[in-house]
Amino acid sequence: MPTAIGNIAIYVSDLEKSERFYVNALGLEVLTRINTPAVHEVIVGSSSGGSNLMLAKATGSEAPVRPEGIWKVFLFTDDVAELQQRAIAGGAEWVADPEHLEQFKVTIAFVKDPDGYLIELGQRHT
Amino acid sequence: MPTAIGNIAIYVSDLEKSERFYVNALGLEVLTRINTPAVHEVIVGSSSGGSNLMLAKATGSEAPVRPEGIWKVFLFTDDVAELQQRAIAGGAEWVADPEHLEQFKVTIAFVKDPDGYLIELGQRHT
Repeated sequence: MPTAIGNIAIYVSDLEKSERFYVNALGLEVLTRINTPAVHEVIVGSSSGGSNLMLAKATGSEAPVRPEGIWKVFLFTDDVAELQQRAIAGGAEWVADPEHLEQFKVTIAFVKDPDGYLIELGQRHT
Repeated sequence: MPTAIGNIAIYVSDLEKSERFYVNALGLEVLTRINTPAVHEVIVGSSSGGSNLMLAKATGSEAPVRPEGIWKVFLFTDDVAELQQRAIAGGAEWVADPEHLEQFKVTIAFVKDPDGYLIELGQRHT
């Protein structure tokens, strides 16, 4: 019985704002939209591969979103410094400047999304 | 500048227990293990595709894991009833029996993982 993960869903407080952030600032694509009476959902990712993140807003809830439990969303890019600048210009909160990790052959930087979810930006070095 | 999501990371309270659950009960594979002094990480998913979930345990923290912010992890399978039974036998908490959603051509069921994260099991109908 094969199993695979379709997506991982997080609650957001403002779906349009989060969609703009993940698409315009982080460079991801909208892969699917699902609207039901109870919840509005936008799945973001890359059509060329990788994992899928569902941004979800319960229609009847104005409760604050608590970015706990989830630690981070990890994004690959080919220019981590530029992506971090673009993310901050697009509303991200700065967390940590790019740092090269020789052990893992990667440079990583951190920002937070509009709800405070931690985003790790990573650039592989070969 | 292409961007893709590598994985989405959640904190777990017992990494070995969560790994057993996601692998033995849910049928996912361990794709990567990363251990640093600060955190132990296991990335689960499917080598045949789909999204990747990182299970992470901060080594110095015994703080309780709060499964908030994240709504659910969505898994595809080809037998949702069997997978739900296997998940419950493997320590999952029952949440909802399989239900067919004609609108989406899918049967879904829900369980919770050992930390209380909601898992949606989905079986597509073609």
